Amino acid sequence: MASQNTASLKKVADMMRDLDFCMLTTHADDGQLRSRPMSNNGEVEFDGDVWFFSGADTRKVADIETEARVELNYADTQTFRFVSMSGTATIVRDVDKKRELWIDDLARWFKDGPESEDVVLIKVTPSVVAYWQGEDEGEIALQ
Amino acid sequence: MASQNTASLKKVADMMRDLDFCMLTTHADDGQLRSRPMSNNGEVEFDGDVWFFSGADTRKVADIETEARVELNYADTQTFRFVSMSGTATIVRDVDKKRELWIDDLARWFKDGPESEDVVLIKVTPSVVAYWQGEDEGEIALQ
Repeated sequence: MASQNTASLKKVADMMRDLDFCMLTTHADDGQLRSRPMSNNGEVEFDGDVWFFSGADTRKVADIETEARVELNYADTQTFRFVSMSGTATIVRDVDKKRELWIDDLARWFKDGPESEDVVLIKVTPSVVAYWQGEDEGEIALQ
Repeated sequence: MASQNTASLKKVADMMRDLDFCMLTTHADDGQLRSRPMSNNGEVEFDGDVWFFSGADTRKVADIETEARVELNYADTQTFRFVSMSGTATIVRDVDKKRELWIDDLARWFKDGPESEDVVLIKVTPSVVAYWQGEDEGEIALQ
């Protein structure tokens, strides 16, 4: 199954190219769904996980620590391309991982840098990726 | 409170202008969230509800009939504008309402027209609208 999974990852990576902003949907504590725009910071290539930097003391982090199931929705209204990822999120506080993924532009939002405890990573591992690209649409199971 | 609500509706309507496509997120029967792109068909003006035509025998209709809480995410990557609506959805089968909202372009998707039982309306009533528009962001409570 390894080669099939590699092919699936490659297909998703191709669709994700140039899609930087998405809406991250979490389960809020009032039972509603809540979303906010998030950037992948020009992440190199999709390899099965999607990573975001976040403030530690934010509603989305609290939401994820209560209910890990999330969704990511990417839309490009110029090329008419939509990608939806259903999966689970975890909060990663490992300083080495934060340093590895850090880019300088992030200092605009997180002035204390990747070493700060106030900065965490949100790691989203999608199990299903649905896509709509012109007339082409489909679903890719990743797990 | 009527005038305050009118002002809120007007503000949301202004933000929604020219945003036609969104992702509709529902709770799937496997416990995951699922989304798909939906069009408002150039709906005249937001008045508190958002309407979509749908096939009756679709997963999104089944999802909504099981769990009414949904979310709508609008993104315009050209003007860098994001609007997220959290609310509840209901399935409307009333033929008069379907005729009222029908536009001819829909025949491409629903060849039997608004009278057909195979065509339903999804009515979404948002309780909170969050928006991000350049440097401006905020939340508007509608109910």
